[in-house]
Amino acid sequence: MAAEAAANGVEKEERQTGIIDGPTNPMVTPLLTDLYQFTMAYAYWKGGKHNERAVFDLYFRRNPFGGEYTVFAGLEECIKLIANFKFTENEITFLQSSLPPTCEGGFYNYLRGIDCSDVEIHAFSEGCVVFPKMPLMTIEGPVAVVQLLETPLLNLVNYASLVATNAARHRFVAGKSKLLLEFGLRRAQGPDGGIGASKYCYMGGFDATSNVAAGKLFGIPLRGTHSHAFVSSFLRFDEITEKSLHSCDGSNVCEDFVSLVQIWLRKLKCSDSLGGIFGETNLSELAAFTSYALAFPTNFLALVDTYDVIRSGLPNFCAVALALNELGYKAIGIRLDSGDLAYQSCEARKFFRVIEKEFGVSDFGKTSITASNDLNEETLDALNKQGHEVDAFGIGTHLVTCYAQPALGVVFKLVEINKQPRIKLSEDVSKVSIPCKKRCYRLYGKEGYPLVDIMTGENEPPPKVGERILCRHPFNESKRAYVVPQRVEELMKCFWPGKSGKDREELPPLKLIRERCIEQLDRMRPDHMRRLNPTPYKVSVSARLYDFIHFLWLNEAPVGELQ
Amino acid sequence: MAAEAAANGVEKEERQTGIIDGPTNPMVTPLLTDLYQFTMAYAYWKGGKHNERAVFDLYFRRNPFGGEYTVFAGLEECIKLIANFKFTENEITFLQSSLPPTCEGGFYNYLRGIDCSDVEIHAFSEGCVVFPKMPLMTIEGPVAVVQLLETPLLNLVNYASLVATNAARHRFVAGKSKLLLEFGLRRAQGPDGGIGASKYCYMGGFDATSNVAAGKLFGIPLRGTHSHAFVSSFLRFDEITEKSLHSCDGSNVCEDFVSLVQIWLRKLKCSDSLGGIFGETNLSELAAFTSYALAFPTNFLALVDTYDVIRSGLPNFCAVALALNELGYKAIGIRLDSGDLAYQSCEARKFFRVIEKEFGVSDFGKTSITASNDLNEETLDALNKQGHEVDAFGIGTHLVTCYAQPALGVVFKLVEINKQPRIKLSEDVSKVSIPCKKRCYRLYGKEGYPLVDIMTGENEPPPKVGERILCRHPFNESKRAYVVPQRVEELMKCFWPGKSGKDREELPPLKLIRERCIEQLDRMRPDHMRRLNPTPYKVSVSARLYDFIHFLWLNEAPVGELQ
Repeated sequence: MAAEAAANGVEKEERQTGIIDGPTNPMVTPLLTDLYQFTMAYAYWKGGKHNERAVFDLYFRRNPFGGEYTVFAGLEECIKLIANFKFTENEITFLQSSLPPTCEGGFYNYLRGIDCSDVEIHAFSEGCVVFPKMPLMTIEGPVAVVQLLETPLLNLVNYASLVATNAARHRFVAGKSKLLLEFGLRRAQGPDGGIGASKYCYMGGFDATSNVAAGKLFGIPLRGTHSHAFVSSFLRFDEITEKSLHSCDGSNVCEDFVSLVQIWLRKLKCSDSLGGIFGETNLSELAAFTSYALAFPTNFLALVDTYDVIRSGLPNFCAVALALNELGYKAIGIRLDSGDLAYQSCEARKFFRVIEKEFGVSDFGKTSITASNDLNEETLDALNKQGHEVDAFGIGTHLVTCYAQPALGVVFKLVEINKQPRIKLSEDVSKVSIPCKKRCYRLYGKEGYPLVDIMTGENEPPPKVGERILCRHPFNESKRAYVVPQRVEELMKCFWPGKSGKDREELPPLKLIRERCIEQLDRMRPDHMRRLNPTPYKVSVSARLYDFIHFLWLNEAPVGELQ
Repeated sequence: MAAEAAANGVEKEERQTGIIDGPTNPMVTPLLTDLYQFTMAYAYWKGGKHNERAVFDLYFRRNPFGGEYTVFAGLEECIKLIANFKFTENEITFLQSSLPPTCEGGFYNYLRGIDCSDVEIHAFSEGCVVFPKMPLMTIEGPVAVVQLLETPLLNLVNYASLVATNAARHRFVAGKSKLLLEFGLRRAQGPDGGIGASKYCYMGGFDATSNVAAGKLFGIPLRGTHSHAFVSSFLRFDEITEKSLHSCDGSNVCEDFVSLVQIWLRKLKCSDSLGGIFGETNLSELAAFTSYALAFPTNFLALVDTYDVIRSGLPNFCAVALALNELGYKAIGIRLDSGDLAYQSCEARKFFRVIEKEFGVSDFGKTSITASNDLNEETLDALNKQGHEVDAFGIGTHLVTCYAQPALGVVFKLVEINKQPRIKLSEDVSKVSIPCKKRCYRLYGKEGYPLVDIMTGENEPPPKVGERILCRHPFNESKRAYVVPQRVEELMKCFWPGKSGKDREELPPLKLIRERCIEQLDRMRPDHMRRLNPTPYKVSVSARLYDFIHFLWLNEAPVGELQ
């Protein structure tokens, strides 16, 4: 394995000849594909078909999570793979040992020579809101090369789009004013399940992550304070040896912050407004909070549920926060990680407000409340219905593993070869593919909402603003509607021009993709977005494409014989 | 990002000083952790607590998929991380920019110096069958260092154990005689969701994968032939230009294999035994099969459902297989990817048997039948109940994303610090942690089955064969049983000795781990393993540990006040 690792280092250099850097995960190589892509490539090559020009569409058939929209994500990683798609000698040697010995050596020379310089990729921009049946990416090129790309492109788009959509749905339920933190790394499906989740949840509208590696790789804001173990690691209150703390402005030093905390705890216990609700708190917890505040006086946020939120965590937090306040620091807040989050957050808010008034600490009532503990869309929705005072949600397992639906069915289908349209038939109509190289448009109505997406043949004239356009369901002849668009947006752009001479669309930074995503989600008509029984957004084909699909269908489908 | 990539290359070298190679995925670094591990490390350091000796247990609370067992996986990757755990300057710089500016510079010097040379890890062997509450790993060392390990260890164990268990469950339903192929890469949660799935499904009892990268990394057997797109890429039968094929023994050449296939197709149509069921087949499909056979005469396996399995795919396959047979080749078989797999496989088997008899082709009746298409435990079970003739199953989405339960709740709890036991209480009894550094044993009964797992305090004498041992439920006082073990197995071994001077248990190759896993699963009493209503396997503590837990519990729990 040492040799392997060293070889991979070399391989990476050998490969990075493109104008775009390689994939974030160095394990994404041309070998990250199914063996059958290579056996097919060999059969194409052996039969002299490998350079036939093929067009494949990458699309999905159903929106995830019972919703009516999906966020398209993963494109940048796809383009990074394509820009650096090249086999190394080490990989060729492995392939040679994996394919049958009857395979001719000339094939491996062919593999040595291939890259994606003759592949052309059109795609939706990353972060767009997308719908079933529409091609998210169209990949055109020599059939053997494009076929090799199938598995890695699907792998890179499937989970990325799924988890970005999941994040967008969580944001929708939580509302715009809440801070959403992705905390899923420990439960994610493997290391880059975690790293990918952090990236695509941020794209889908989260504000920050706990994942330091993702923060470094993608510039995502980082959040995190301490866990229960930190609290449990303190055994006694007298453990703290270094007790001094400078005031916030540096003008003086409190020599015994620990005593100051104890003074404040006594004041809280004696407060009339708090009505004596605070009794004996857990002193090892108080030690933990005090120690944490000494380390982070400007960033004091405490996890308050190790022993008992109301009887111990909350008064201990307030004592430390008020001691900090006396030195000019403003505590950030608390985190709740178990129990009835709605009730606890409301109680905490009440205490904070009473303290603001009682001790004249301005804005103490606004002290931030973070909630975590197995949150998902349903629990967020339930919290909203109960009423709560949570300002920030930390969401992990359900978000990053997409617990409600852990896979998206993005597929990769041949739609044209040698300029001949191909259709994949199926007894299940929803699995019939839409043939030909196409163009895709989004038509907007008077109120500025998108009304319908429409696919046309490649050479049809584009829909025009103000013109009456017949939009047809691709497979259901009775579903059709006239639309007069107020705005027409062409949806697919050229992200990898191959030899076409087209301009290459730049890959924007993550922050801009995130902004696009949030903006596109905002622009949708609300009934498409709601959590329960959303209205399906319409996806259609032009009248000409409709006729052509059905002509091909009849041509290809076998005529049954009833017996 | 180019600079980033280059820097990562350097970082990898800087890091690999251990006696064991680094993690398979180079993205697994000491930064692959939650920010709060660093803020806690800082607070420990600032409070002078960072070197306090802590013991953490890594365990889970409930078996996944409604079952009563789990396969422990991911250990090798954990040890690889630990053996190479070292911060690079680049990482330190990033951490410095991520923590508050109030953090003292001395902390970063401390981080520069740390590694896992003073960390000690005991664990179950990878591939073992494990149960809730038992510590799968015990991590002992300076509290700040061990805390930093929490997130990556959880990440590396959680999904690995989940998907290995899922694979074992699929194997259990499919039966030992079937070939199980993992086909999940395209739907996995990210690139190493795919690579991890391939590794851990193999460990859990699968036979092969389609994932070429995983084949290269781990030596897993590879499988795959062709997709629907390959069939659809053929437009006409006369597309094939190179038609000659050597006979298997090289003694002669068939100049027109295409015509030979057509001759056999006619023979099939005219066969009395087949009763004229074969009519007109799809000729572009026949072209695809013929072309594939010319490329892989020794490995001909065809996907037969692109048009119509019974009316087209099957007769086309048979024609090509019989033509190959005439040249001394033996076709491998067919793959079914849609429709009623039970019915189709039985029909196919019938045809194969008739052909064996009619044309005297020995073993043609045993031609292999592979089935795929959204398979999971339930569909395998349903196929068994209907009766089928499938020899091999290709399983993807449900297997690798663990669709039935996409996350395992492995946790990491402080059980001892400075030789003082720690217990984490919770209103939910199942969430109470078992304190102290422990030893774990599996007690076997007369019939050779494991009867119960038992935890004892570190210094208790081990259970002895033939001795009557009281095994107590850790939290339920009425649940207890005497056991007289016929064999006692100590379960945890030292995989990373730190400075203890103990021997380091070697990390066995994947193939051996897989064998251990299969053997351990076989050795379980069948009622623990069944799919529906399995009997829970008992996990217990010694009488002494029981008393100690409850002494601590009463000591720590606050006494409530009813109002």
